[in-house]
Amino acid sequence: MTERIVLAYSGGLDTSVAIGWIAEETGAEIVAVAVDLGQGGEDMDTIRKRAIDCGAVEAVVADARDEFADGYCLPALQANALYMDRYPLVSALSRPVIVKHLAEAAKYHGASTVSHGCTGKGNDQVRFEVGIGALAPDLKVIAPVRDYAWTREKAIVWAEERNLPIDVTKKSPYSIDQNVWGRAVETGFLEDIWNAPIEDVYSYTANPAEPRDADEVVITFDKGVPVAIDGETVTVLQAIQILNSRAGGQGVGRLDMVEDRLVGIKSREVYEAPGAIALITAHQELENVTVERDLARFKRQVEQRWTELVYDGLWFSPLKDALDTFIAKSQEHVSGDIRMTLHAGKAVVTGRRSEQSLYDFNLATYDEGDSFDQSLAKGFVQLWGLPSKIAAKRAQQH
Amino acid sequence: MTERIVLAYSGGLDTSVAIGWIAEETGAEIVAVAVDLGQGGEDMDTIRKRAIDCGAVEAVVADARDEFADGYCLPALQANALYMDRYPLVSALSRPVIVKHLAEAAKYHGASTVSHGCTGKGNDQVRFEVGIGALAPDLKVIAPVRDYAWTREKAIVWAEERNLPIDVTKKSPYSIDQNVWGRAVETGFLEDIWNAPIEDVYSYTANPAEPRDADEVVITFDKGVPVAIDGETVTVLQAIQILNSRAGGQGVGRLDMVEDRLVGIKSREVYEAPGAIALITAHQELENVTVERDLARFKRQVEQRWTELVYDGLWFSPLKDALDTFIAKSQEHVSGDIRMTLHAGKAVVTGRRSEQSLYDFNLATYDEGDSFDQSLAKGFVQLWGLPSKIAAKRAQQH
Amino acid sequence: MTERIVLAYSGGLDTSVAIGWIAEETGAEIVAVAVDLGQGGEDMDTIRKRAIDCGAVEAVVADARDEFADGYCLPALQANALYMDRYPLVSALSRPVIVKHLAEAAKYHGASTVSHGCTGKGNDQVRFEVGIGALAPDLKVIAPVRDYAWTREKAIVWAEERNLPIDVTKKSPYSIDQNVWGRAVETGFLEDIWNAPIEDVYSYTANPAEPRDADEVVITFDKGVPVAIDGETVTVLQAIQILNSRAGGQGVGRLDMVEDRLVGIKSREVYEAPGAIALITAHQELENVTVERDLARFKRQVEQRWTELVYDGLWFSPLKDALDTFIAKSQEHVSGDIRMTLHAGKAVVTGRRSEQSLYDFNLATYDEGDSFDQSLAKGFVQLWGLPSKIAAKRAQQH
Amino acid sequence: MTERIVLAYSGGLDTSVAIGWIAEETGAEIVAVAVDLGQGGEDMDTIRKRAIDCGAVEAVVADARDEFADGYCLPALQANALYMDRYPLVSALSRPVIVKHLAEAAKYHGASTVSHGCTGKGNDQVRFEVGIGALAPDLKVIAPVRDYAWTREKAIVWAEERNLPIDVTKKSPYSIDQNVWGRAVETGFLEDIWNAPIEDVYSYTANPAEPRDADEVVITFDKGVPVAIDGETVTVLQAIQILNSRAGGQGVGRLDMVEDRLVGIKSREVYEAPGAIALITAHQELENVTVERDLARFKRQVEQRWTELVYDGLWFSPLKDALDTFIAKSQEHVSGDIRMTLHAGKAVVTGRRSEQSLYDFNLATYDEGDSFDQSLAKGFVQLWGLPSKIAAKRAQQH
Repeated sequence: MTERIVLAYSGGLDTSVAIGWIAEETGAEIVAVAVDLGQGGEDMDTIRKRAIDCGAVEAVVADARDEFADGYCLPALQANALYMDRYPLVSALSRPVIVKHLAEAAKYHGASTVSHGCTGKGNDQVRFEVGIGALAPDLKVIAPVRDYAWTREKAIVWAEERNLPIDVTKKSPYSIDQNVWGRAVETGFLEDIWNAPIEDVYSYTANPAEPRDADEVVITFDKGVPVAIDGETVTVLQAIQILNSRAGGQGVGRLDMVEDRLVGIKSREVYEAPGAIALITAHQELENVTVERDLARFKRQVEQRWTELVYDGLWFSPLKDALDTFIAKSQEHVSGDIRMTLHAGKAVVTGRRSEQSLYDFNLATYDEGDSFDQSLAKGFVQLWGLPSKIAAKRAQQH
Repeated sequence: MTERIVLAYSGGLDTSVAIGWIAEETGAEIVAVAVDLGQGGEDMDTIRKRAIDCGAVEAVVADARDEFADGYCLPALQANALYMDRYPLVSALSRPVIVKHLAEAAKYHGASTVSHGCTGKGNDQVRFEVGIGALAPDLKVIAPVRDYAWTREKAIVWAEERNLPIDVTKKSPYSIDQNVWGRAVETGFLEDIWNAPIEDVYSYTANPAEPRDADEVVITFDKGVPVAIDGETVTVLQAIQILNSRAGGQGVGRLDMVEDRLVGIKSREVYEAPGAIALITAHQELENVTVERDLARFKRQVEQRWTELVYDGLWFSPLKDALDTFIAKSQEHVSGDIRMTLHAGKAVVTGRRSEQSLYDFNLATYDEGDSFDQSLAKGFVQLWGLPSKIAAKRAQQH
Repeated sequence: MTERIVLAYSGGLDTSVAIGWIAEETGAEIVAVAVDLGQGGEDMDTIRKRAIDCGAVEAVVADARDEFADGYCLPALQANALYMDRYPLVSALSRPVIVKHLAEAAKYHGASTVSHGCTGKGNDQVRFEVGIGALAPDLKVIAPVRDYAWTREKAIVWAEERNLPIDVTKKSPYSIDQNVWGRAVETGFLEDIWNAPIEDVYSYTANPAEPRDADEVVITFDKGVPVAIDGETVTVLQAIQILNSRAGGQGVGRLDMVEDRLVGIKSREVYEAPGAIALITAHQELENVTVERDLARFKRQVEQRWTELVYDGLWFSPLKDALDTFIAKSQEHVSGDIRMTLHAGKAVVTGRRSEQSLYDFNLATYDEGDSFDQSLAKGFVQLWGLPSKIAAKRAQQH
Repeated sequence: MTERIVLAYSGGLDTSVAIGWIAEETGAEIVAVAVDLGQGGEDMDTIRKRAIDCGAVEAVVADARDEFADGYCLPALQANALYMDRYPLVSALSRPVIVKHLAEAAKYHGASTVSHGCTGKGNDQVRFEVGIGALAPDLKVIAPVRDYAWTREKAIVWAEERNLPIDVTKKSPYSIDQNVWGRAVETGFLEDIWNAPIEDVYSYTANPAEPRDADEVVITFDKGVPVAIDGETVTVLQAIQILNSRAGGQGVGRLDMVEDRLVGIKSREVYEAPGAIALITAHQELENVTVERDLARFKRQVEQRWTELVYDGLWFSPLKDALDTFIAKSQEHVSGDIRMTLHAGKAVVTGRRSEQSLYDFNLATYDEGDSFDQSLAKGFVQLWGLPSKIAAKRAQQH
């Protein structure tokens, strides 16, 4: 029986060419797998058909948009996941769900190997291969771009020679990865980190500098899950989509940063993630209102570690699983409404209300009705500062 | 010899009245100490004169603006200090420098006691008293508002009865604390956390929603210290002042949040800190370019702990001192230029350049000149994921 | 209806006297509550009778030994809880379970107040009162020793005057708190921290210096729970009791340290915890075998925070609850056998075996059968060290 | 000019053979470098002569014992460095100092390459190569065992064929790495982790089970540095040597554990480190007495990270340098005497005294002279528990 290889397929030039090239190199049959994560562009049927036309024996397309939103974007939202305090893990979240579909397809179609189109200097190879290792440790991996120095130029020649049904003429200067959680853009002129992005690199967001009216939105959370927008019930996917549109329309969520890759180098990255940034901003403030202080302080450490793990390709790992239980527990009271103004590139919280609020007007107010017993404070202050005071006395003596 | 008490004096109604009241209650002589931290308002001579007129035996005013900028704001900038990822510690930074001046005045004037006007439900009482305990552990503390339930209403009556030279009629609805690093505003209607701030609460920042031209600025850092703006050499104080003006003019640095106080309650706080936010944003990105990954990751934990300590009143503490050495070491390569656009409430980095950059174009580029050896990646990925893979195999067997 | 006060009752002089004293001071009826946590000594019936004889209207005694072992000692074991890397939280674990019984008794008997005998300079007052605040926030607290300067001397006079059925003559030089998880001893001569403990302070442990034969034991864990000793099924309580006897018989578990109390002072403490130390030692090594590296590394931070929280009286707190979920998740594969030698004050692991082991002989061996692909290592090493190398190159240039 | 390669030379079979083999394979001249870290065994002159006899063009031997003790063991002591709470980093500390001598020799002798004898599944290859990358990023590395599958069997044949001056007949079943800080032993039968070590594997420590008299020692530290033993001034090296002898004579410092290697596998390791364990035990308790609580708590996290970094081969790294400054600062008051009893495998602290002590008898005592103001405690307890209490009230309402 002929060996089979499952290929992560995007429909683009590189992976279309890879179908034939890998088949030729290995003698194996290629099963192409494309996963819809809300990246837009061509419809999945067109992509499936192209895979077959390029020589795949099977082509699987999966609408994983809700799966991605519920199982990957939502945990990131609850972790307020911002790598280096900025980047909401757009690509890093998508790789594990693709890996899951690859592993399932490999099992279903009896494949021994999976293949991806990542280079050897990025994070995505790690996310693919470590994920495969965790979900299907017996599968082998082929990475033509990395392991066989396969380039775009070679791909064009290959496609032309074999007359593959791909338009090789339209060349974008941008290398783009996008899904419903956001969009990442790399391009040559941004590799000079003194250069500013130009308006042309953006697609999910309008220019924040253009004058327009502000947009006010109320987001309702139930136990850390966004469940309604302006009172209308939504799925997580819908919440992200609606805010991509509304926050994106106000220019919210553009990011431009130098980033530490797992493979040891720094790179310059430009992102857009209007829905993600709006949701995380709202969620953080609702946590400020509903999560107890010590829990909130420790959760920041958990969030950082969770984010680093996911960035570093360890979505499927024992530590990630254990951190998930912590985060899940922390969400049990994160319910209520956040009102935000979306305008000129910013999502600004202007109001919060919650039946689970730990904000106690009577304890906080300086007006009448104050129920805080100030006489307790003196003792608190004295003992709180006692270790420092004892240390200070010692320092004076020496 | 008559006992002396050093009073932290602002020139306002409450502390003006306190001069006479404490003197009467205790029989002690009052030494008023006012410290200029760039809060603006009345000049220091006027304040000094009022203290004397209200009955102080001595009135000390100190221009501590450079001391505050260099010794308190700068360490906060290098720590990227944002409490709860938001608040740049405006009041929390000012208390230790005031405490230092109080302790020095107490020593110079032979006082046995210091007095402050803080309430018993806020953080500032802790910062004052823990600071005094650390700098002058033998000093006693009197806090009339907290310990004797002294109120504004009582103060007005007292001032009128004694005909003190204070205007008791102009009553602001706002309780304000401000210095060069920022401004904090509390007011009754904001104690309902669903209410949005109104434009009237702001003073350091223009309305970000009003259309105006963007402002581009280049900030130069040397070892973590801002040393030039648009090529003009500046002191730290000048850097903050210039950016307060320019970033403030674009509406940058408004904050509205629910915050965890040390005394165990949540409160609603509105802040403005245009210079602080602009500087921290620039500094963070320059660190992204110049600080090695593992150091940057651990520094985030150090930053959080540093910020909590300072918020919690432990500026003068052994842990703070030790964290300072870590942060100082981390800054030795944080030199270079950051170009930012200030506009519509946002400070956005658009370019960075540094002779200390760890960003290596040749390692990062996808174009020609790439010096990254991709053949190394396969082994890295395999061993990086090995623990997860072994754990996954175990999970499959059980 | 007469007010009722629930008193944490030990049967000793202080709390026996407190029954009458509090009743007299407050006019309330006293409900005495004694909880058996395996502390040994008098039987619970005797204690109940004495409470009644001293004037209690009700006396409740509860055998909470299994509840304590399963609900308090076991989580501490799974957290490898050693405060300051030494102290297994003997008293800190017992307070929350006592508090739970006090709160239940208060509810059942309609009491408005609880009372405890702790001083104002120890940790236990915090554990009692914070626990009460969390379980029954409306209950008031009376602490006669702390709030009314009630002393042992006053207690003796009081008892003699009223002819209470307590032997006031036998005076131990030791202040002791003990339960099945261990024993804490304080005494005057140990307050000089240069003094060594004498053999007389110990009760749970034999002198480790005396020659005797070693004892070998095999402890079986199932998901982090000790379930068998030398193949005999045990409850958690039995596991602790058996190891108290066997490890205690070899002098295991003596501790002598200077400790940081929550109230801001350092104190000298001597403990014995043979069962706890033997179990934690075994559990740690089984985790070394069965828990993945990154999870193990982060768990150490979680363990430290968990331990500090419990030491600091925050057993009933949102952060503790969330850390518990993390720890519970981490235990799912901690199953297997640990063989230990108990001898001369040490519990030494000599063997481990587990069907959940992540130790893979074929990957680890240097003999034949080695399945580790050494060719992967070169790439790993290069990329692992790349950030340091880039930083080193920079340092050379400047 | 002929290329030169610097070889890390031990004098043993493998590296003796490597001299000729590398020369033959590469055509380069070999410079052998042997570093004395207190490992004992043959004298350095014998080793140098053998290198020449085996074909080295130069043979450098360095007495780095004090350098190792002062620059590597001492920082580990101040970090209380115990990987996985057990292993005092014996080999991990030695690699960086060897790397330093290799890099210096490479520079001095104009070599382009260094070579080491490590396998591809251990940690030491990482420590060597990452260290070389940080100290001399332009040097190349050859690892014959890893990269050319060079085995002991091949080495014996090679040595016999060329009649090299090495005794190939005596074959130890143990693979040993040792230096003054400790000794690591691996051997086939211990790869079965259920097997206990036998007495024969130990060399630095006597059998702790044999009866003998206890040994009492007083160690004096000055700012974290051991400066005297029983009143006699010592260097750090002497302190370690004396305690290796005295603590080793009592069987102190044996370790047997399953350990997480950086390369992703678990391995079984047996160590002896009597001096290291005795010194760390003493140092930890002196820190308990002299280091303020918050600093001590955070230092535990720093210690863990420092230890992981050094274990993971990142001695020469920016984060390690920054953590060093924190640790150095933390030691400024760690001065005083620790009295210990060494006996039956344990080093037990029995007394501590320090002019820098933060233990305050008057605050701690329950006898007369108590200066602790217990009236402060009530307020402290109330506010300390307030966040939990507010959260508990919320939980009751829902």
